[in-house]
Amino acid sequence: MTHKIAILGASGYTGAELVRLLSEHPNMDIVALSGERKAGMEMSQVFPHLRHLNLPKLCKIAEIDFKGVDLCFCALPHKTSQEVIRDLPTDLKIVDLSADFRLRDPEDYETWYGNPHTALEQQGEAVYGLTEFYREEIRSARIVAGTGCNAATGLFALRPLIAANVIDLDEIILDLKCAVSGAGRSLKENLLHAELSEGYHAYAIGGTHRHLGEFDQEFSAVAGRPVRVQFTPHLVPANRGILATVYVHGDATQIHETLATAYKDEPFLQVLPMGEAPSTRHIRGSNFCHVGVVADRIEGRAIVIAALDNLTKGSSGQALQNANLMLGEDETTGLMMAPLFP
Amino acid sequence: MTHKIAILGASGYTGAELVRLLSEHPNMDIVALSGERKAGMEMSQVFPHLRHLNLPKLCKIAEIDFKGVDLCFCALPHKTSQEVIRDLPTDLKIVDLSADFRLRDPEDYETWYGNPHTALEQQGEAVYGLTEFYREEIRSARIVAGTGCNAATGLFALRPLIAANVIDLDEIILDLKCAVSGAGRSLKENLLHAELSEGYHAYAIGGTHRHLGEFDQEFSAVAGRPVRVQFTPHLVPANRGILATVYVHGDATQIHETLATAYKDEPFLQVLPMGEAPSTRHIRGSNFCHVGVVADRIEGRAIVIAALDNLTKGSSGQALQNANLMLGEDETTGLMMAPLFP
Amino acid sequence: MTHKIAILGASGYTGAELVRLLSEHPNMDIVALSGERKAGMEMSQVFPHLRHLNLPKLCKIAEIDFKGVDLCFCALPHKTSQEVIRDLPTDLKIVDLSADFRLRDPEDYETWYGNPHTALEQQGEAVYGLTEFYREEIRSARIVAGTGCNAATGLFALRPLIAANVIDLDEIILDLKCAVSGAGRSLKENLLHAELSEGYHAYAIGGTHRHLGEFDQEFSAVAGRPVRVQFTPHLVPANRGILATVYVHGDATQIHETLATAYKDEPFLQVLPMGEAPSTRHIRGSNFCHVGVVADRIEGRAIVIAALDNLTKGSSGQALQNANLMLGEDETTGLMMAPLFP
Amino acid sequence: MTHKIAILGASGYTGAELVRLLSEHPNMDIVALSGERKAGMEMSQVFPHLRHLNLPKLCKIAEIDFKGVDLCFCALPHKTSQEVIRDLPTDLKIVDLSADFRLRDPEDYETWYGNPHTALEQQGEAVYGLTEFYREEIRSARIVAGTGCNAATGLFALRPLIAANVIDLDEIILDLKCAVSGAGRSLKENLLHAELSEGYHAYAIGGTHRHLGEFDQEFSAVAGRPVRVQFTPHLVPANRGILATVYVHGDATQIHETLATAYKDEPFLQVLPMGEAPSTRHIRGSNFCHVGVVADRIEGRAIVIAALDNLTKGSSGQALQNANLMLGEDETTGLMMAPLFP
Repeated sequence: MTHKIAILGASGYTGAELVRLLSEHPNMDIVALSGERKAGMEMSQVFPHLRHLNLPKLCKIAEIDFKGVDLCFCALPHKTSQEVIRDLPTDLKIVDLSADFRLRDPEDYETWYGNPHTALEQQGEAVYGLTEFYREEIRSARIVAGTGCNAATGLFALRPLIAANVIDLDEIILDLKCAVSGAGRSLKENLLHAELSEGYHAYAIGGTHRHLGEFDQEFSAVAGRPVRVQFTPHLVPANRGILATVYVHGDATQIHETLATAYKDEPFLQVLPMGEAPSTRHIRGSNFCHVGVVADRIEGRAIVIAALDNLTKGSSGQALQNANLMLGEDETTGLMMAPLFP
Repeated sequence: MTHKIAILGASGYTGAELVRLLSEHPNMDIVALSGERKAGMEMSQVFPHLRHLNLPKLCKIAEIDFKGVDLCFCALPHKTSQEVIRDLPTDLKIVDLSADFRLRDPEDYETWYGNPHTALEQQGEAVYGLTEFYREEIRSARIVAGTGCNAATGLFALRPLIAANVIDLDEIILDLKCAVSGAGRSLKENLLHAELSEGYHAYAIGGTHRHLGEFDQEFSAVAGRPVRVQFTPHLVPANRGILATVYVHGDATQIHETLATAYKDEPFLQVLPMGEAPSTRHIRGSNFCHVGVVADRIEGRAIVIAALDNLTKGSSGQALQNANLMLGEDETTGLMMAPLFP
Repeated sequence: MTHKIAILGASGYTGAELVRLLSEHPNMDIVALSGERKAGMEMSQVFPHLRHLNLPKLCKIAEIDFKGVDLCFCALPHKTSQEVIRDLPTDLKIVDLSADFRLRDPEDYETWYGNPHTALEQQGEAVYGLTEFYREEIRSARIVAGTGCNAATGLFALRPLIAANVIDLDEIILDLKCAVSGAGRSLKENLLHAELSEGYHAYAIGGTHRHLGEFDQEFSAVAGRPVRVQFTPHLVPANRGILATVYVHGDATQIHETLATAYKDEPFLQVLPMGEAPSTRHIRGSNFCHVGVVADRIEGRAIVIAALDNLTKGSSGQALQNANLMLGEDETTGLMMAPLFP
Repeated sequence: MTHKIAILGASGYTGAELVRLLSEHPNMDIVALSGERKAGMEMSQVFPHLRHLNLPKLCKIAEIDFKGVDLCFCALPHKTSQEVIRDLPTDLKIVDLSADFRLRDPEDYETWYGNPHTALEQQGEAVYGLTEFYREEIRSARIVAGTGCNAATGLFALRPLIAANVIDLDEIILDLKCAVSGAGRSLKENLLHAELSEGYHAYAIGGTHRHLGEFDQEFSAVAGRPVRVQFTPHLVPANRGILATVYVHGDATQIHETLATAYKDEPFLQVLPMGEAPSTRHIRGSNFCHVGVVADRIEGRAIVIAALDNLTKGSSGQALQNANLMLGEDETTGLMMAPLFP
């Protein structure tokens, strides 16, 4: 059976990545693609790399007949997303890639995003979309909230360790290095090639990055007590990839075993042999996440490093993984492509 | 039916690219991977991006039992390739990715490569592997010679125009821009990131690049008279992609129509609307070749631009396309993945 | 004696490059920096790499007292530039980096730029700023028009050859490869790192690039008859540098000798030994232009290749070179810094 | 008075960077350049970006007459360096850029470098070359040991804080991001453009990087007790630059004041306003080091970030700064050039 799929916000990078992934999915057909400002254009004009595909033209959301849609990916900016989803049919399955439904507590949402949530009902039913930890809930969910790409990376490195209580919860430092596509296709001076190439810097330093809302929520939930980490993202001159270097207090061998056990049946989570560390170049364009553990020379300290592709496992691949579950497909369908290297 | 596949020279970029493509092919199984210097190692050590696959260890060629092999991809350096292929079973299907079987005239081979050919018998039966032009011969061939990646790009831009006699054969200039993976994984100073990044230059200027042997052979054959083009490759700081900017004398509209007609049923050749030009970023990681035509302000002059991924359509994707034909598979199986952008 | 310098349009790349160069000039002091939209800001906020310098704040042009200014660099967008310069004091020395005063014929200006020229008087006195060919006129000029960066590169490769009549004037093809800073700091989707990095493409194909106006003017003037070249610029993923690969009909040895003779006393023009070709990586950040000549395998054909840094020799370095002449300084003062490699 | 300068190991990146810097120094003349394997070659063949300079040919060290040399920069690999320096005239001033004379304790040297030190006498007289902290000793030293480029970055961020006792000495984490030129011009697979570009990874994780020897020595000395930090370097796809993100326990305001005070008269150390953070793109090609401090959301925690160019302030610029002192020149001569951006 073929599922009919709509993608709202198809003119951004996560929208295009969804189209790339769905183009090889045997049981999903794209029936609608929205892009408010580019409505009427062919996708091949907006994304010439999709030129070979037979796709619907970009349209306005208002033009879509959702009766013919089985599942809708929503790749809109946050705030817009909640306003749109609030008005969609209440029986439509939705995978939202924005930040709007990630935080369960509306006050947390307002704290981190600065505006009150206006779709509280939908927020109430949304499931946090980190498949490996919420698989059963996602299977029966109507709305799944895609995670932040940085949040996903940090969660893959840390969540099993917090759950197993093998690290000191008050001494966690997440130093992330993110590629530029995570910032989207927005026209900002600091995203220009001439500005970004050949240089790198930290941003949102000191605890102001919004993905901290997700870390706080998820780590505290699994720990059963408040957990607050230090988190510094850095922008590096590459297009895809997130590398999380996580400094923890704990026994490296126990940490490695905990992660290896947690992920041993996971199709997309690859725990490297003890002492080895991943690189973003080895997961590019794929849905895999590589995790490594190294002991520090200081006893009782370890470094956990996780790498994934922000556009794939960090957003659109994760979204498809969840959609597969929601539609009764095998979780890995359309997602087992090997990374692109070099 | 599943075909059993061996890859000789699997520790280089074209070998790894073959593994990437085959990993999603429904009817091909990799049964042997050779790498003389890295024999005994796991592929995941040599190419960590293939870590998720269940692959045979790298071995020496001498260790492979070719009785269990249906088709062998040979991704060895030229000269080594002919020596190895000469000694392979005579009923084994072979797709060679080296330069050794591209030139039909042994003297041409010696002229361009500096050493006499030592596998003349095999050379005699080899078919030039540009699928779009030798499809029927390839279907029944035992040995197919993968083309040079630059040669493929230039041939896609020019061959139909020469065949249709719509351009001046004595005024053809091919200015190519090549990404660095075309040079392979060899340790050369000028391939270091610190040398290459942020700069670009021409090399093999003035008619010394070996792919000219292929241009001379193919263009002359289709023209029925000697054709010699000017060809200047440039190395640009990117990993994948070839862009050929071809300057010709002829009517742009007629040129565009000739190419559009020639490629109208080709699954991988995309002729852009008149006046539009391709970019390497829109074919990365895919088996597609985009071709555009623009009229110059000088009457009777046109610019034809072709773009493809040197590791995919330029070598390993082309190789798989040919292998599909040789094994009775659909030509496009395992090759329809969308390009990776950004 | 110290000259007092103003820079109009100091918030763009050419403005910042002027500040970089002037920061080490022994006899020039920056007394005013304008930036209409960023007026009131410190340069260190707009360009943190200039943080160590003691610079005036950005102001509006209207706030500058030009009585205290000896020479004004005008790094404004074209059209704006002519409007501003028209109203500046008539005894102020001006080096304009825009396109507004490059074309001597007002009709040519309107043809290429689409709007009528509104400062015809100033246009009449402007000297084309390619120092090596207009040195004496520049020395006594009040207004010097900085050349297009692509135009400069092509002119360095070709002008002496046309003057010496050693190439066929009807068979000239300029294939240029330009780095991204030439497009300035403007917010355009195709200049984003995620769009540009790892890909390359041709643009303004077929004779539509505005720098052709300069080629037509300069080549025709020196030839004494109309000369029209083919010109295709390409955007490559690097920040600085232009490489012009020029295809000509002529004798390579004679061409090399002509260039070597023409430039033998030029401090910034380096003609490489016969058969060698330049790279943009070897002129980055400097005021040098490297030129090489290679014979083609086809008799009577040659390839001339020129490389320079678009922001230095292609615009701001050239501007300072001209300002040095206009102010009676040694032409090379502040400009002999070695290229930055790697 | 002009000082006569020799550079040993001039065919590597730090050697070339020294030539770049010295080319504009008014009082230093290069009289000898050595390169054992490239002896007899012109520097313009080895480094075409230095083509415009009139330089001595590369020679073997044995061919240099050190009587005519006032100061010798030694840019040789460690181990080789000590063997060469041991045999140089005992009255020759030497700035060594290798690791051989950085560690004062010969046992520490053997621990980190794996071989016993064979020039103990010279090691005894060597001064650690971090100018800002050893200025007076350097002025009168005969041998100055250039610091590791990572070590310099970390020391600039931390040394004044440890000296002032404003941070917890047992909770220091240095997460470094290094550009590729720090690895030199050596032919290693992981330094190829195709391997490195578009990806990033940590290396020497867990306390194995040799620059830890310098951190241990310097931090312990200034603290008056053993200090051991956690240190993880990462390789990012850029050519120049080091960014150190340092996580400390302490009061951010006090930390910022301590650094601002420590560096207030330093010509090359720029402390940013509280809350701002540096980027490597803003120090490229210069001798400046930018340092920023940001408070974390967790009380009592702060992030200190330092950025410098590994080839300039991290090695060759630092070396010239020291040579200036040793020769009685102004410390900043030849070193005040602005960074290159973009």
